[in-house]
Amino acid sequence: MVKFELIHTDKKTGARAGVLHTSRGDVETPAFMPVGTQGTVKTIIPEELKSIGAQMILSNAYHLALRPGAQLIAKAGGLHKFMHWDGPILTDSGGYQVFSLAKLRKVEEEGVRFRSHIDGDMHFFTPESVVQIQEEFLGSDIMMPLDECTDYPCSKSVALSAMERTYRWLQRSIKAKKGNKSALFAIIQGSVYKDLRKQCIDLMGELNVDGYALGGLSVGEDKSATYEIVSHCCRYLPKDKTRYLMGVGKPQDLLESVQYGVDIFDCSLPTREGRTGKSFTSSGEITIRNSLFKEDFNPIDKDCDCYVCKNYTRSYLRHLFNTSEILGPRLNSFHNLYFYLSLMKKMRESILKDSFLDFKKEFMRKYAPS
Amino acid sequence: MVKFELIHTDKKTGARAGVLHTSRGDVETPAFMPVGTQGTVKTIIPEELKSIGAQMILSNAYHLALRPGAQLIAKAGGLHKFMHWDGPILTDSGGYQVFSLAKLRKVEEEGVRFRSHIDGDMHFFTPESVVQIQEEFLGSDIMMPLDECTDYPCSKSVALSAMERTYRWLQRSIKAKKGNKSALFAIIQGSVYKDLRKQCIDLMGELNVDGYALGGLSVGEDKSATYEIVSHCCRYLPKDKTRYLMGVGKPQDLLESVQYGVDIFDCSLPTREGRTGKSFTSSGEITIRNSLFKEDFNPIDKDCDCYVCKNYTRSYLRHLFNTSEILGPRLNSFHNLYFYLSLMKKMRESILKDSFLDFKKEFMRKYAPS
Repeated sequence: MVKFELIHTDKKTGARAGVLHTSRGDVETPAFMPVGTQGTVKTIIPEELKSIGAQMILSNAYHLALRPGAQLIAKAGGLHKFMHWDGPILTDSGGYQVFSLAKLRKVEEEGVRFRSHIDGDMHFFTPESVVQIQEEFLGSDIMMPLDECTDYPCSKSVALSAMERTYRWLQRSIKAKKGNKSALFAIIQGSVYKDLRKQCIDLMGELNVDGYALGGLSVGEDKSATYEIVSHCCRYLPKDKTRYLMGVGKPQDLLESVQYGVDIFDCSLPTREGRTGKSFTSSGEITIRNSLFKEDFNPIDKDCDCYVCKNYTRSYLRHLFNTSEILGPRLNSFHNLYFYLSLMKKMRESILKDSFLDFKKEFMRKYAPS
Repeated sequence: MVKFELIHTDKKTGARAGVLHTSRGDVETPAFMPVGTQGTVKTIIPEELKSIGAQMILSNAYHLALRPGAQLIAKAGGLHKFMHWDGPILTDSGGYQVFSLAKLRKVEEEGVRFRSHIDGDMHFFTPESVVQIQEEFLGSDIMMPLDECTDYPCSKSVALSAMERTYRWLQRSIKAKKGNKSALFAIIQGSVYKDLRKQCIDLMGELNVDGYALGGLSVGEDKSATYEIVSHCCRYLPKDKTRYLMGVGKPQDLLESVQYGVDIFDCSLPTREGRTGKSFTSSGEITIRNSLFKEDFNPIDKDCDCYVCKNYTRSYLRHLFNTSEILGPRLNSFHNLYFYLSLMKKMRESILKDSFLDFKKEFMRKYAPS
């Protein structure tokens, strides 16, 4: 069970401050979910996530079902216990992963058949099995239904057909759901076609779901197209439910989407770039391995008060990456997550003060001076 | 400046409990130093090291001089500040690394010329330059002098010649030392030849050093030979100075050597095996990736009360290693270090109660049942 409470909408934009109440704790929105695809937010322990303000994390039914197996996690007492995170967990259904990672996928009305990208074994996901994995085996707080994703670009007829199948699969997902402990969101599809997106929202709006996710974005389309669809969808989505933009994005994307009224986000960027040695700073991204930082004894970001910035220098971080020391990815991921989470916090504060646009402008002025 | 205080010698063995006083804090002995070769104890932050009882760590002049460069660390304010560890640091001189890692080494009376194992650049280490690196650039609390290491097996004449050169280099190291902030240990050489070891102790015993390290062991000789030399040396080493057995070892080696009177140890085993998925437990080592542990929802070690054992299962650890998640090496290294550090603590307690042998017997009964 989750309940979204809209606290305040910024007077000048669509930006919303809210609280998503879950049985495992409240999530203040706009919120960013660190990504724990395989049952771990890469390099970081749950206590650290909490210490930097993470209130909900994302994990992935597709990956966990393949390894270590959903039933093993059920035996372990569920995903929360298995990975030692007692806050809420939203799990992605795996729809997107089947389309992006798996080999030889075959979509049928019944479900989707695919070869595991790990060992080549055949699997068959149906809307029902994917609900069972999340509800019964993993014990997710918020489940995502199986959806049919389209490539970009895709013709309108393909987009329509995938959207309609996603709708039928959502109906089956709702029926498959056994109890009320795990909430279920709908995934809005329709590619870059505004009328399809609207149609999808209208169709799904009549079903009893706990929130809405925007799927099929950031798959190759222009940024302006993404923003247009996000803005368009937010105009029609019910105000009393959570809006979740899947897999997005860069700091500037978060700001833009919050402005239109998106509430929650997930993205692997802060941890992925954390591992490859890219660091987010208030004046933009830097590549910490760069020889520029060899003797730079400043913190990653002078304006940041995270553990890493208080205790280590760019020079030290560079040394760690240069010598392939695991502490490098660990410290850099920690900093990047802190950067994202504190950005969300500041956005929320500005919304509550009706000064979101000022905040955004000031942030962008420093972050990406034009 | 360091000062060793012998608190108690076990009534039935040579095992000693002491305190090594340093300007950066006391080190209770017998002590184990986690290894931070490149200026980081792999995967672990200093706060975690302290939380599990680490009081002194080891780092390495050879590695740091090559990367990021000793003078860079000096500019950063010294090694402690660079790596954010404010406790004492013992640095190895690099003698052993020159002999084990470097290519094309050439030993002259003046010093040792070698090619970096990283980029092939030529370097020249002298007793004086190695003291300067440790004292002036890194700011070590305890320095090791440059020594000449021999292979195993080696003839007595080669061992004698290396021991004598090591002695001459120690004399030069003492002269090169500028102040009293960094202590200097002697390194006892002499291969497996007891008379050479005794001769080395006699020679070096007349010089003013702050402690004695046993070098050139665990280089391929039989375990029984190692133990015989350790025991032999401990018989002749002055009682009022610290005894340090370099690069040793497994838990059973630590117990054996403490029994003869060794005070401090370093070894990369807990972190190296931590990364490769071997875990130390009170009933011996286990390979956590083993399919045996797939559905084992017990902690790594039931008798361990470390953070990892309190919060995670063998099954979860196995999953992390299986999916190449960095959290696996991190958690496992943490546990292994905890295991080592708590073993040292228990040894110390038993020495203070004159029950070291009972403790050792009981530990070994569980650890390696015969």
